[in-house]
Amino acid sequence: MTQVIRTSAELREKVATWKRSGMLVGVVPTMGALHDGHLSLVREARKQSDRVIVTIFVNPMQFNNKDDLEKYPRDEDHDLALLEAEGVDVLFAPGVHEVYPDGFATVVAVSGVSEPLEGAFRPGHFEGVATVVMKLFGMTQAGRAFFGEKDWQQVQVVKRMVEDLNVPIRIIPCPTIREEDGLAMSSRNVRLSPEHRALAPRLHAEMQAAAAAIRAGAPVTATLEAAKAAIGAAGFGAWDYLDLRSAEGLRPITELSEPARILAAVHLGDVRLIDNIAV
Amino acid sequence: MTQVIRTSAELREKVATWKRSGMLVGVVPTMGALHDGHLSLVREARKQSDRVIVTIFVNPMQFNNKDDLEKYPRDEDHDLALLEAEGVDVLFAPGVHEVYPDGFATVVAVSGVSEPLEGAFRPGHFEGVATVVMKLFGMTQAGRAFFGEKDWQQVQVVKRMVEDLNVPIRIIPCPTIREEDGLAMSSRNVRLSPEHRALAPRLHAEMQAAAAAIRAGAPVTATLEAAKAAIGAAGFGAWDYLDLRSAEGLRPITELSEPARILAAVHLGDVRLIDNIAV
Repeated sequence: MTQVIRTSAELREKVATWKRSGMLVGVVPTMGALHDGHLSLVREARKQSDRVIVTIFVNPMQFNNKDDLEKYPRDEDHDLALLEAEGVDVLFAPGVHEVYPDGFATVVAVSGVSEPLEGAFRPGHFEGVATVVMKLFGMTQAGRAFFGEKDWQQVQVVKRMVEDLNVPIRIIPCPTIREEDGLAMSSRNVRLSPEHRALAPRLHAEMQAAAAAIRAGAPVTATLEAAKAAIGAAGFGAWDYLDLRSAEGLRPITELSEPARILAAVHLGDVRLIDNIAV
Repeated sequence: MTQVIRTSAELREKVATWKRSGMLVGVVPTMGALHDGHLSLVREARKQSDRVIVTIFVNPMQFNNKDDLEKYPRDEDHDLALLEAEGVDVLFAPGVHEVYPDGFATVVAVSGVSEPLEGAFRPGHFEGVATVVMKLFGMTQAGRAFFGEKDWQQVQVVKRMVEDLNVPIRIIPCPTIREEDGLAMSSRNVRLSPEHRALAPRLHAEMQAAAAAIRAGAPVTATLEAAKAAIGAAGFGAWDYLDLRSAEGLRPITELSEPARILAAVHLGDVRLIDNIAV
């Protein structure tokens, strides 16, 4: 039976009873509209923790686009049923005023790794992420937190913050879960039209082809430009970026001298898809 | 026997053994050069906690003035002897590189209450305070933290941060400790010349007189201006501020409709004195 908790005071009491018994708490922070990607995080959390909290909070502070915030899919009843089936102990689903009460005035900002890519195209996004994640860590007092590599840059920002602020929690990144055709699972995918849904996997296919070419020694810039052109010709909209970056610091690189990833953000209809893969 | 610890890894191990026994940890964050004001915090921490950590770290990030940072008094051997005598369990005294390793990139910023007074005259000061305090809370995993009301605005900033980020710690403000002549104890007092040391208590005396006058119904602005003039005539240097403010939000007020304090910062030779009292 998954207990639904809506206030941090009630959550703190619950967690205190667990902590007194020496239990390790795992948390999976989400914005709801759960799919198999989230559930893979939940399963990992169950393996690595004595008690599991899943948080659902569509965090206004991390949305730079009001329309995206309003259209973000929400279905708590369905989410709760999925979490029940996974044996989650607590669904923590606070309201906006519980998270940001009147007088709220604190921001956590991570420079460097948060600045390129999503940071450049979504001003303020990672401040919103860092701040709410810090709050959720404080509210849940979890010892482990599980994040999907689909949001690769977010994982790097959270890891940097945890290290810099000496937060007593371990960040566990978990692999991106994909549809059979290769499309990275995302809550926003339900907003794709049938035509665009059919086209969407092409992004991952071209990224894989580019990664293989770069690994085989093809020149980085030309290979990425060709992939962009191919995806554009297939019917995608504007690119935000398609970059080769160092895996941890997300520095731009033009040769494979360290672990690297291709990261992409591209528009398809009024949905913005992001993805990333190891090279 | 007070154990001196210099790395957060070693501190974390120590704290973990305490936590496993269900002990409540109290922390007193300081910049060293300990005086009776600090020791009053330590005694309160001993009363309210099972184990006490005193931290000594002269935090470069909160000094807006390089000269002030260099001249800040340091005497760890003497500090350690004082803490031994108080029965402190751990002195945590990390080096600068331990607190801010290469690649450090995270800042905690509190708006509002941090902006006037010290915030206006010491740009970046409270970001430095909030960030290092957040780090020390993470490193010590303390359940209670003890701060002196001498730094009244700092207490308000830390309380705001703890509430906003849901940090699982209780902030315990402790009263300012004064010399017999009324001068608020401060590590910077040792830098006063004998003449200025003799003059310094006049600040507190005039603040008390102004508070009494305001309580008795005297007009706020004229009373504070008169106090400023009197202190100036006595031989003090430039004023940064002498204000009546709401006690919690530090909003400027001109009548006593809520708990209020007079807060002051004034230069005396090359030392900057701050003080505050209830009205």
